[in-house]
Amino acid sequence: MRLSNAALALAILGLGVLEVRAESRHADLLIENARVVTMDETFRVIEGGTIAIEGTRILAVGGGEVSQEFEAAQTIDAGGDIVMPGMINTHTHASMTIFRGLGDDVPDRLRRFIFPLEAMVVNADNVRKGALLGAVEMVLSGATTFVDMYYFEDEVARAAKTVGVRAILGETIIGFPAPDAKEAYGGLAYAKKFIREFADDDLIVPALAPHAPYTMDREHLAEVAGAARELGVPVLLHLSETQAEIDHIATEFQMSPVEYIDTVGLLTNELVAAHCIFVDGDDIELMKAKGVGVSHNIVSNIKAGKGVAPVLEMLEAGVDVGLGTDGPMSGNTLDMMGLLGYTAKLHKLAKLDRRVMPAKDVVEMATIGGARAVNMEDRIGSLEVGKLADLIIVDTDSVHMIPMYDVYSALVYAAKAHDVHTVIINGQQIVRNRELLTVDVEKVKRDVLVLTEQIAKKAEDL
Amino acid sequence: MRLSNAALALAILGLGVLEVRAESRHADLLIENARVVTMDETFRVIEGGTIAIEGTRILAVGGGEVSQEFEAAQTIDAGGDIVMPGMINTHTHASMTIFRGLGDDVPDRLRRFIFPLEAMVVNADNVRKGALLGAVEMVLSGATTFVDMYYFEDEVARAAKTVGVRAILGETIIGFPAPDAKEAYGGLAYAKKFIREFADDDLIVPALAPHAPYTMDREHLAEVAGAARELGVPVLLHLSETQAEIDHIATEFQMSPVEYIDTVGLLTNELVAAHCIFVDGDDIELMKAKGVGVSHNIVSNIKAGKGVAPVLEMLEAGVDVGLGTDGPMSGNTLDMMGLLGYTAKLHKLAKLDRRVMPAKDVVEMATIGGARAVNMEDRIGSLEVGKLADLIIVDTDSVHMIPMYDVYSALVYAAKAHDVHTVIINGQQIVRNRELLTVDVEKVKRDVLVLTEQIAKKAEDL
Repeated sequence: MRLSNAALALAILGLGVLEVRAESRHADLLIENARVVTMDETFRVIEGGTIAIEGTRILAVGGGEVSQEFEAAQTIDAGGDIVMPGMINTHTHASMTIFRGLGDDVPDRLRRFIFPLEAMVVNADNVRKGALLGAVEMVLSGATTFVDMYYFEDEVARAAKTVGVRAILGETIIGFPAPDAKEAYGGLAYAKKFIREFADDDLIVPALAPHAPYTMDREHLAEVAGAARELGVPVLLHLSETQAEIDHIATEFQMSPVEYIDTVGLLTNELVAAHCIFVDGDDIELMKAKGVGVSHNIVSNIKAGKGVAPVLEMLEAGVDVGLGTDGPMSGNTLDMMGLLGYTAKLHKLAKLDRRVMPAKDVVEMATIGGARAVNMEDRIGSLEVGKLADLIIVDTDSVHMIPMYDVYSALVYAAKAHDVHTVIINGQQIVRNRELLTVDVEKVKRDVLVLTEQIAKKAEDL
Repeated sequence: MRLSNAALALAILGLGVLEVRAESRHADLLIENARVVTMDETFRVIEGGTIAIEGTRILAVGGGEVSQEFEAAQTIDAGGDIVMPGMINTHTHASMTIFRGLGDDVPDRLRRFIFPLEAMVVNADNVRKGALLGAVEMVLSGATTFVDMYYFEDEVARAAKTVGVRAILGETIIGFPAPDAKEAYGGLAYAKKFIREFADDDLIVPALAPHAPYTMDREHLAEVAGAARELGVPVLLHLSETQAEIDHIATEFQMSPVEYIDTVGLLTNELVAAHCIFVDGDDIELMKAKGVGVSHNIVSNIKAGKGVAPVLEMLEAGVDVGLGTDGPMSGNTLDMMGLLGYTAKLHKLAKLDRRVMPAKDVVEMATIGGARAVNMEDRIGSLEVGKLADLIIVDTDSVHMIPMYDVYSALVYAAKAHDVHTVIINGQQIVRNRELLTVDVEKVKRDVLVLTEQIAKKAEDL
């Protein structure tokens, strides 16, 4: 057999390629041709970038050269779309999707609607159904981790695992009988059982969730603080959320809620404090000193007519702040992507200054900032080698995303939930072409819809 | 042939049906099985409703019985989804999609970025390309009419007609050379030609758009007022938008911008005044007395750190208020659906009261309220017999739309642009299954994308 020069050259080239291939490393998944928004320490954005994933972890992040290094079982061509860390929803009550849109625009909602409805309707089955719908909504809009406070959190955990989403789940402890505890504060016993059950789960971090400074007595707040230390779990708490709370704690204890919570031992690095709307400079310094993480929930806070938390001051002081949707009876959606724009704009309004809270800072809070707030920045929140592979791909071809002069601006001021077309959590692809691969979404929707007639009837009497 | 009693009964029944059919009226289109949000005077919502359309007009609105009355050439089964009036975007600069996301989070944007960029980049061709993208975005997110101020408005008119969307288009008049006028105030001559060209168009209402009280002198403002009276066209104006404007007019003329505009004869029923952030009780009374329409642009206003216009006070005084996205270099999207939630929530924040600006009032401003602001309430803004058939169908099956206890709450606090799956304007179906039927959207996107490299380069030097 005779080879032409060209064929010979190709053969040699072929051997060369084979040689490279022989040296190439194995990856389970390569994502190529991506605009990678790493959210690493230098805020590196890589055009034409590649990410290699093996098992649950990120093996490599870089330019096109990374593609040459690896032999992958599966490849996703991102087609120039944005690949970014999955967002972290740092505060919600996912199961409350079953109540979405009830009691809007009315006063005294918590005591008039929410508590009575929960007493009548909430059980393990409904918590599971609501959590499934909530988890589906969150994943489809770009959250890969959520932080939840509710009742029957073991059901929320099972729902999250079914969907395949990472979650920090706090069982609620409150000073009156609750749907999953006949006695006041019975949630603590429930929580301990729940924490044991999910202690070693690869997606679930079980936690304690004392409800709020104003719905529990001092002794039980302190007891929860002790249990948290003993069990080594995170603590989730509503804090400094209403003026009534501020007034109540000032009258009872002559201090701010933040100071009060410190006196019972809850103000620690393990605490994720939701809202923190009514905090002053002293509170912020104290939170920073104790390493508290804050969940900022702007959509819920303004819809409730409460106010804008001083997040710029918190960030300036070095407090770790993440973003949260709050529950769907407050928010009313669980849409992290939509939350970005609200967050940027509301702080500009609060300061009457279009320069403050620039887009990049908002994306930071939604990703690595949220990870810091929940003490998981070593594992999630940015696209870096060794971290867990939690990431999303955002369509840049939607009409509202064209043109794109700045990737952070596009994400914060233009992108919508529906632009998320791919979601990978713990190395597993959960969403492909905007379709959830893990659960039957039609069944999840039907299961909630069948509850609504009975819930609407009960709500009418409130 | 012998008939059983049952068969006989069926035959008689059949004749009965035939008889009804023989009497039935013709419709071009029936939309059946809809949750019809009429936005009529009684805010009627019809479950299982039907709308009949003939030519450009609504023939009938009612329950399932309407379906029996008509023989239709085409039928759309809404499948229980929301059918509502198409929304009216009362203020935008659609062509500025070509600049979307430029100059975010920076100070002095208008003079530092917008005016210089426009001087360098804006020409008839780019206006057309930008307007096509903007019109596509608006229609896909539920607007069926838009109000636009820019240069080369004849190009915007042609773009709107190509897409098939209704528009009130104001040619800009400004006190310095502009992209379509070498001399200061040259826009007035351009406007007169434009108004003649589109005087009898069935989709386009041509208008005059004096830019703002602070970018024109008194004489030319008065000249525009005279021309508007003479030509019988609407006037579009930025008014009371910034503190600098207030200060400038106070220093020069010792009055508010609203009072000043009245002295030149522009404060009339034909005026659609955009923003009106810095107006007091006297201004509002004057606007009411003169029948001025106001365009409220909350997303743009807060992103710019300007403030929240006193819309509750305007509505209380009886001023006609519609909603606007402002231009995509301000907003940054042209998403009317997303604007609903912002509008409701920002007024609750401004008043620290969750009860104010309830969802229904927001939907009203987005539809019939906007129609009143632009003096078209006899033709658009609600679903009533004899009105033009401008309507949209909103998906109620998205995960974030489940459950739905209140249709207004669902539209304002949960619905997203992508939920709009069908759009009918002037009796013509423009959007089916979220796909635009009138233009090649891929080409519209490409035509803007090819401009971005040169624009980005020019913007770098600013």
